[in-house]
Amino acid sequence: MRGVVIDAEWAPRSDYALSERERRDRRAVDASQVWRNPQWAVDERPDPRILEPDQVIVRSRAVGICGSDVHMFERDTDGYVLLGYRARFPIAFGHEFSGEVVEVGPAVCALSVGDAVAVEALNYCGTCRACRLGFFNECERAEDNGFTLDGGSAEFVLTRERYCWSLNHLRERFDEDALYEVGALMEPTSVAYNGMFIKGGGFRPGRHIAIFGCGPVGLLCAQLARAAGAGKIIAFDPQEARRAQARRCGADEAYDPIELERAGSSAAEAVMSATRGIGVAMAIEASGAGQVTLPQIERCLDYGGKAILIGLTLGPSPVRTGNYIVRAASLCGSLGHLGGGIGDAIELHASGRMDATSVISARYPLQEGVEAVKHTAQRTDAKVLIKH
Amino acid sequence: MRGVVIDAEWAPRSDYALSERERRDRRAVDASQVWRNPQWAVDERPDPRILEPDQVIVRSRAVGICGSDVHMFERDTDGYVLLGYRARFPIAFGHEFSGEVVEVGPAVCALSVGDAVAVEALNYCGTCRACRLGFFNECERAEDNGFTLDGGSAEFVLTRERYCWSLNHLRERFDEDALYEVGALMEPTSVAYNGMFIKGGGFRPGRHIAIFGCGPVGLLCAQLARAAGAGKIIAFDPQEARRAQARRCGADEAYDPIELERAGSSAAEAVMSATRGIGVAMAIEASGAGQVTLPQIERCLDYGGKAILIGLTLGPSPVRTGNYIVRAASLCGSLGHLGGGIGDAIELHASGRMDATSVISARYPLQEGVEAVKHTAQRTDAKVLIKH
Amino acid sequence: MRGVVIDAEWAPRSDYALSERERRDRRAVDASQVWRNPQWAVDERPDPRILEPDQVIVRSRAVGICGSDVHMFERDTDGYVLLGYRARFPIAFGHEFSGEVVEVGPAVCALSVGDAVAVEALNYCGTCRACRLGFFNECERAEDNGFTLDGGSAEFVLTRERYCWSLNHLRERFDEDALYEVGALMEPTSVAYNGMFIKGGGFRPGRHIAIFGCGPVGLLCAQLARAAGAGKIIAFDPQEARRAQARRCGADEAYDPIELERAGSSAAEAVMSATRGIGVAMAIEASGAGQVTLPQIERCLDYGGKAILIGLTLGPSPVRTGNYIVRAASLCGSLGHLGGGIGDAIELHASGRMDATSVISARYPLQEGVEAVKHTAQRTDAKVLIKH
Amino acid sequence: MRGVVIDAEWAPRSDYALSERERRDRRAVDASQVWRNPQWAVDERPDPRILEPDQVIVRSRAVGICGSDVHMFERDTDGYVLLGYRARFPIAFGHEFSGEVVEVGPAVCALSVGDAVAVEALNYCGTCRACRLGFFNECERAEDNGFTLDGGSAEFVLTRERYCWSLNHLRERFDEDALYEVGALMEPTSVAYNGMFIKGGGFRPGRHIAIFGCGPVGLLCAQLARAAGAGKIIAFDPQEARRAQARRCGADEAYDPIELERAGSSAAEAVMSATRGIGVAMAIEASGAGQVTLPQIERCLDYGGKAILIGLTLGPSPVRTGNYIVRAASLCGSLGHLGGGIGDAIELHASGRMDATSVISARYPLQEGVEAVKHTAQRTDAKVLIKH
Repeated sequence: MRGVVIDAEWAPRSDYALSERERRDRRAVDASQVWRNPQWAVDERPDPRILEPDQVIVRSRAVGICGSDVHMFERDTDGYVLLGYRARFPIAFGHEFSGEVVEVGPAVCALSVGDAVAVEALNYCGTCRACRLGFFNECERAEDNGFTLDGGSAEFVLTRERYCWSLNHLRERFDEDALYEVGALMEPTSVAYNGMFIKGGGFRPGRHIAIFGCGPVGLLCAQLARAAGAGKIIAFDPQEARRAQARRCGADEAYDPIELERAGSSAAEAVMSATRGIGVAMAIEASGAGQVTLPQIERCLDYGGKAILIGLTLGPSPVRTGNYIVRAASLCGSLGHLGGGIGDAIELHASGRMDATSVISARYPLQEGVEAVKHTAQRTDAKVLIKH
Repeated sequence: MRGVVIDAEWAPRSDYALSERERRDRRAVDASQVWRNPQWAVDERPDPRILEPDQVIVRSRAVGICGSDVHMFERDTDGYVLLGYRARFPIAFGHEFSGEVVEVGPAVCALSVGDAVAVEALNYCGTCRACRLGFFNECERAEDNGFTLDGGSAEFVLTRERYCWSLNHLRERFDEDALYEVGALMEPTSVAYNGMFIKGGGFRPGRHIAIFGCGPVGLLCAQLARAAGAGKIIAFDPQEARRAQARRCGADEAYDPIELERAGSSAAEAVMSATRGIGVAMAIEASGAGQVTLPQIERCLDYGGKAILIGLTLGPSPVRTGNYIVRAASLCGSLGHLGGGIGDAIELHASGRMDATSVISARYPLQEGVEAVKHTAQRTDAKVLIKH
Repeated sequence: MRGVVIDAEWAPRSDYALSERERRDRRAVDASQVWRNPQWAVDERPDPRILEPDQVIVRSRAVGICGSDVHMFERDTDGYVLLGYRARFPIAFGHEFSGEVVEVGPAVCALSVGDAVAVEALNYCGTCRACRLGFFNECERAEDNGFTLDGGSAEFVLTRERYCWSLNHLRERFDEDALYEVGALMEPTSVAYNGMFIKGGGFRPGRHIAIFGCGPVGLLCAQLARAAGAGKIIAFDPQEARRAQARRCGADEAYDPIELERAGSSAAEAVMSATRGIGVAMAIEASGAGQVTLPQIERCLDYGGKAILIGLTLGPSPVRTGNYIVRAASLCGSLGHLGGGIGDAIELHASGRMDATSVISARYPLQEGVEAVKHTAQRTDAKVLIKH
Repeated sequence: MRGVVIDAEWAPRSDYALSERERRDRRAVDASQVWRNPQWAVDERPDPRILEPDQVIVRSRAVGICGSDVHMFERDTDGYVLLGYRARFPIAFGHEFSGEVVEVGPAVCALSVGDAVAVEALNYCGTCRACRLGFFNECERAEDNGFTLDGGSAEFVLTRERYCWSLNHLRERFDEDALYEVGALMEPTSVAYNGMFIKGGGFRPGRHIAIFGCGPVGLLCAQLARAAGAGKIIAFDPQEARRAQARRCGADEAYDPIELERAGSSAAEAVMSATRGIGVAMAIEASGAGQVTLPQIERCLDYGGKAILIGLTLGPSPVRTGNYIVRAASLCGSLGHLGGGIGDAIELHASGRMDATSVISARYPLQEGVEAVKHTAQRTDAKVLIKH
């Protein structure tokens, strides 16, 4: 089968301590320490086969490109990929995808050939302590389509019944084409949903929300905030195009934080002003630049307010804990898309409360998959899709 | 000042044990055991005066009529009012009201003459154990405008700063007239909000909701469910007019439960069908007929689903606890409008997410106040307002 | 291998609609409708074999006898077993057990031969919607050791890594014999834990607790309440021996509810008196007689109090919902032992905060297994164990 | 009346912008910017008088000395007090106290002359937005006994019914002397309780707890953790005397974090080792040195673990947010003693689950009150009391 395939050289950095398993399986726990000179191409990968009774093969129909995919395309000055996550090459990239079920193992109960499904790419084990406690995203033995297993840029993907969520009932509202686009967006939508409503515990309708960073996840946070009855929604991003997109996704106000500083104000002040001094019940860190956003966030939280960490910031961020103490505020980390939020995100579409496809800014066919990634790497777009 | 004044005879039933305080203050803890032959009239009441430093006088602008008001209008075969709640007569009725601040005591900080406010009628003490624990609605020493203190059908109402919530910022979206209508609806909206989001803990966006009983509170539940991102919203009421109103308020489907039974189906089955077998995360009992609704509710709850008790059912209801056990479901009681939900409900209006005035079905001037109550007693309307 | 084996006649009642799967697999969804004339004997069962890579074989060391086991021993007037749960015969009974790992499949990571483990008998699928949402006890495709798979009264049990919880670190505090007794009690302890702390959400330390029904689960609730810092713990049971046991397990007061009624008082009044009028934050229904306990429970809940349903009551119970409304109280169903509580219960033992073995009232060797069940059927004991 | 009275010079720093209210009332919002050259003496203060109907006069019986009291004793190089909190001088210090009710206003319902009470020193208004939402500790208009009103080192204290919590029922377990000692400790106990169980949401019994900083609040956290069923309790403090005290208060292990570093290990590693790699469900920052403790805390949290901020750290602390993201962990600020935890802490004593008096390390009579503060300033003690 064809896919957008990444290959690279296995060249562990001299100061990186490879584990026995990494060496044996040629599977890096931190790709940026091991894989050099990545090459991307539309190429062949072996067709998947069902080996265990609960497995399913899905024909991929649409796959989104994420910042972490771009981190396998870009390289540092030594030629290493930027991705600080597990990876095994060669592999067909793509962890945000949907498709049609084309084959099911004998133990599969609730899926049939022909079903439209959104697929959870994080293959949690269900057995480790994290999984038993319901922390599936924190699974200690996980694999991922798109990083350690072939992903959604391939024509076919091997997965399991438990990672598939039916989209069949969306056919009442979406045509076949839009259906799979919605499906491909369920992964980033669930990342946002997980942070806001599962790990973050949600907010009372009417309370205000601030969003720092208007990449695809930030935009989906704005849509979800709007769908869930937020009062004022205030978004921040230095790029004008993204601020405009944030307004279309439901933000009442969108500011350039750099310009605010330049004008002697700040993001925190803009939030306090927009909320008449109340502050926000939830501030979402979706920029990965916590060093600059957290000092703003801690100054605009309402009593009991929550800062939700979704974007991954490297290195330490300065936190004045007194600001959390005097507001009874908290700061919550959130990782990944698992935990059932995907089912809720699908229902929001089934009931017509939300349409995530409005964050799509470009679509490419498979044969132009590498161009699609190059395009995404410019970081001016919202969400770029490859469609099979 | 003028108001819609209720008077009645103090005639404790022979089998009712009056407390010393009831005797001394002529204030019944259960009006239906004491007050007979109520007389309603537009009449004079003494003007209020500020006696304590945190008090406020509000000129009432709009007041809603509630089922419990009607229970002081209607009488049983012995002539007693039907209200099973505290009351002292004569009194100007009205616990759902808004108005303009016309005088403030010396300790009042955040209110000024001319401010538009929604007023919380339940005067909690702030000192009893319930209040200290934040259970203001359960205050052990409460008084109420409209039941034991003159209420919003009077031209002026004596209240305190802590019971007033500013509506000033709604002027951006509502004209002066609509502003006070929104304000008068904040009490029943907060009753719904308290049940759904504070006592009931809310629901994850995309999850389904069922509403049993489409009186004003049920209708406001539908509006709130819609604003807060519910998936499917399914409403039940035997009256066609109320079902139509429920659809306008955001219900996706509205059924007559009696007709469903007649057709061999049931409310529970209608919910399961509308939700493709999932059931609802929240079922709201807003009918006061728990004997017939709870047996349906317990059969259509999703895993972890919650039945929210808002309507007061007299006598026992049959509950098959096994239905709660196998679904990890729960049943939560909720009383009153206090707890801050009113602030959130106001913000929902300030941000344009909701418009509670759509439940108003009739408006009367003060001089026709008694007709307004008679009209409401027919129980065909949504919300009837008296406007000053 | 040997075990305490139940066999019975497959004789579906004439008015019971067998499903296709029940017929095909000779596995009743409701045993009491299908299985007649149960015979119990210490007998042979086929040795288990590992067929899937995550499976584990455990040599059983101790198994507790539960009321539901007795329901497969007792029969109604038509000779049918009383158990209203799934079952397939012949089978070695026993769902509360611990043992030693004697064989592991190739995918097992965190268990080794020789490990001491408590085993979760409810084999959840991990794939259905309930499981994906973390509602493992509510799994839609579950099997159970002791009901549809051979259980802990057999010498060996086939299970999976994910159902096993290590007891190795208890060796610091418990000798080999006590270790496996603790292990066998982890199932009922987790049932109590799940109801109180996971489904019920726990209680604030210092708040009061009432326990209705002092069978093994009720006694373990008393121990857990004590370990978790409850204020007053008040227990109710008509049997004097069980009340004495409750006091030893940490109850401050234990009453016979029938005697209280006879004396013109009630369980509710006893609670209100013991708590100086405050009531309880949590009342646990562990008797299965909700018809008589719920009317007491609803009258002695503190503000925000929770009634936890653990015991299964057949038929409807009368609930005066107004009692829940005026106290902002709730009623929560809880099923089963899964959800990670078993890990917490084990840690309570590892840290020396609790010793569940104090509820053991009799121990039998395997060859007297049938006598052990007969003894349990007298319902005068706390927990009876069979030890291998 | 006599008391331990602080006086100082009103000398606003040249770069501090006094507000109009500060100037008018001679009440600094930040004492360290305004008050210089504090003088402490056992001296006279005017007797309090009841002026409002819900007021109460309490004869103080015992008062604890807190670090913030010491911050009004110590001064910086310019002679300013160190306290970064509101204060008005002269004043009798003391915000941790208990006493006997000697006079009640006419509206007081539930208190009588002769009652033993613990008094909440933070006089919240009950009217501002924070109070209405139940965030009493965050009250926007608060005054405090001991900082802006005469406190518990005076013979008599003016307070209100709603700030008094009865200790009468402790007489069953504590003699008159111990009773008031327990009462004086209820303020710091509630600070710990509020952080752990109200703002922090508690922990599941059996889960592990780490405590950073073993001053009086840290020690009370250890006691509460033990009472509430924590698994392993691991404490850290550089002072050996405090570590020994922590062990007596329930810590299983207590380490010197400096020594751990010196030995090539760390506090985080000690926690992971003590918990067999699991980490803690709750890590309490009670040292006020977040710069050094937070980098440890974020590396030893269990899945879903919570870092509770109680100690006030000046300036920013470095937080690697990725550590919170990958563990679904959070960081919660907690301020103050209000919120009802004091009632729960009293019940823990009434039921015999805890005895906070074990943290008392020295007792002084009133006439030696200044020596008591000097003693506390050495920071080697647990809790020092002045007894009337």
